[in-house]
Amino acid sequence: MNKQYQGSETSTEIENVSKSTQGSFPGLIIREKEPANYEYPFPMLDDFITPDNQFFVRTHFPVPDISSKDWKLTITGEIENEFSINYHELKMLPSKTVVATLECAGNGRANMVPKMKGLLWEQGAVGNAKWTGVPLSVLLKKAGIKSDAVEVILEGADKGAITEEPKSPGEIHFARSLTLTKALQEEVLIAYQMNGKDLTPIHGYPVRAIVPGWYGMASVKWLIKIIVVNKPFDGYWQTLEYAYWSRPDGHPSLKPVSEVQVKAQIARPALSELIEKGTTYTITGAAWSGEKAIEKVEISINEGKSWEVVDLTSQPMPHSWVLWEYNWQVPIKQSKYKLMVKATDCAGNTQPSEHDADRRTYMINKIIKHEVEVQ
Amino acid sequence: MNKQYQGSETSTEIENVSKSTQGSFPGLIIREKEPANYEYPFPMLDDFITPDNQFFVRTHFPVPDISSKDWKLTITGEIENEFSINYHELKMLPSKTVVATLECAGNGRANMVPKMKGLLWEQGAVGNAKWTGVPLSVLLKKAGIKSDAVEVILEGADKGAITEEPKSPGEIHFARSLTLTKALQEEVLIAYQMNGKDLTPIHGYPVRAIVPGWYGMASVKWLIKIIVVNKPFDGYWQTLEYAYWSRPDGHPSLKPVSEVQVKAQIARPALSELIEKGTTYTITGAAWSGEKAIEKVEISINEGKSWEVVDLTSQPMPHSWVLWEYNWQVPIKQSKYKLMVKATDCAGNTQPSEHDADRRTYMINKIIKHEVEVQ
Repeated sequence: MNKQYQGSETSTEIENVSKSTQGSFPGLIIREKEPANYEYPFPMLDDFITPDNQFFVRTHFPVPDISSKDWKLTITGEIENEFSINYHELKMLPSKTVVATLECAGNGRANMVPKMKGLLWEQGAVGNAKWTGVPLSVLLKKAGIKSDAVEVILEGADKGAITEEPKSPGEIHFARSLTLTKALQEEVLIAYQMNGKDLTPIHGYPVRAIVPGWYGMASVKWLIKIIVVNKPFDGYWQTLEYAYWSRPDGHPSLKPVSEVQVKAQIARPALSELIEKGTTYTITGAAWSGEKAIEKVEISINEGKSWEVVDLTSQPMPHSWVLWEYNWQVPIKQSKYKLMVKATDCAGNTQPSEHDADRRTYMINKIIKHEVEVQ
Repeated sequence: MNKQYQGSETSTEIENVSKSTQGSFPGLIIREKEPANYEYPFPMLDDFITPDNQFFVRTHFPVPDISSKDWKLTITGEIENEFSINYHELKMLPSKTVVATLECAGNGRANMVPKMKGLLWEQGAVGNAKWTGVPLSVLLKKAGIKSDAVEVILEGADKGAITEEPKSPGEIHFARSLTLTKALQEEVLIAYQMNGKDLTPIHGYPVRAIVPGWYGMASVKWLIKIIVVNKPFDGYWQTLEYAYWSRPDGHPSLKPVSEVQVKAQIARPALSELIEKGTTYTITGAAWSGEKAIEKVEISINEGKSWEVVDLTSQPMPHSWVLWEYNWQVPIKQSKYKLMVKATDCAGNTQPSEHDADRRTYMINKIIKHEVEVQ
């Protein structure tokens, strides 16, 4: 851990392994114990690849207990050849490894005013890992997609009933659809490894989807079924949850949350960290965007009056975050300073100054003021 | 009013005109004052055609104040020729008159156990009227629909913000879409008359849609815009409200409530009405189904052990209710009796014995036990 890291998360204590219900997650912040929703303390960021036991956890139901021997994946719907594949057979197929950042669609929700509904993630519902598996496109080609197919539903083994409003229709499996276009992109994986090791139970063992460029809810864990459909899927987690308002026809219409929005985050200094006046402080962080590589990250020390470009310390590439740093000549004047960062991707997408209410409590990437104290 | 009618609604007093905020509605039951939601006391049913001042009222926002001079309707979207039409021009076009039953998708909600969310309509959120206007298909043909069009959005002038969950995305106009197939059916009207007179403000003056066979929410009042679209519309009132769960792919998927489900209702005796033992009592009521004419209505006096077919006293036809009656030889035995009725339409659709939870609080047509007291 960087010695400059002195801060701690403000709203929730970092709980240790003994309090965790789901094995070994030293240092993860528990946002909800059951089902497991654990946050990475983002000020700890040092490495380009997030270790699996520090990777944030988002679950909707209890973690299913599936052995690789019993697991199988069924492909059905608008296809020519319905089939099932077991774990051994899947691992025999040609594999691909991708580096992909997964971010929860509600990451940053805790920073919104007024308080929003939903899990109050601060900055740490994001992580970057190496994922290995079989491209979904390989399985879809084997299945033979019919010409009227438009989407692909990914179904997890995790299930349950949501009894608070908005209620689920009884007990349902977690499921999410991809557009056929996205499903056929070669980086979309049916993955069985994270950072070169078998997935852990909480991250989807034995097999999960990895959908680089889309928010985490699309990377369905404990994947057991793929259904090709000829109509857009209006499932629970893309209408009632993980949906936002778009206005293509002048009317608000609910659309499934999908592509990750461009965003930069400061790791250090932590929020409210004390910084010694007149020193040089290396501000660090990460930045990412959905389908595009990051082009630049800028920082402002004076609340947006002027911006400076920071150094990128890892190679920008699509689907993965980039690390960055900036050597700050800390002023002599003792005061609170509000640091602001913004990222721009190579398609010119950048961050808004306000959260668009049509996004509801998702896709939160407005530029925030990160307050620190110089003494 | 039939002299046998002695009952009254149990949960809400019938309020008179002086209490109404929306003009002259003698005898309508106020379920909500503002916005106006008024129910027809169904035990008063005598006539095949419901007078306009007894017709139930369902509004989501304050009634817009529009003069026929200012009104115009704009047709836009996936069409060859965008145009607007004013009230005078609309009335010059060839018109059509249809008899259509409108039923609120939540009619009968008050009878559900446990209590459901939403306006607690008893039996009277239904009425049958004669509607005159220009077929929507005439306007769509004039506009020239593009080949990729799939739906037609109907937008009302009524608007506002819903600030309770599920929240609307700020202030929005009431809007609902029809499938293109339905929109092109000749009975779907852009209507300016109800029962041979101009619409009243609360029923959509100057112009509303009438969508026979679909629940009332599709018959958009104060119609000002028609938008032809090439993707299914996921607007507020067909995803968050007025939507139900269907499971075409084995997964629950939200679908817009549309076609009216077959249903029979008893008008008299009213609920809990006292009936003299040993007499003949004429049980009356109505029955309707979405796109199909009613074929038969059956009644059971013994809680479903045996059923008898009742007499239909009006001509069965699609989109309209049929009136029915049955001469009951009231037993000598003093007791409570549970009357049950069920309708079957000419496509063989009939009523279920239980409400399917996937319908949420809509499309309520389960067979109910209508309790009366023989003394």
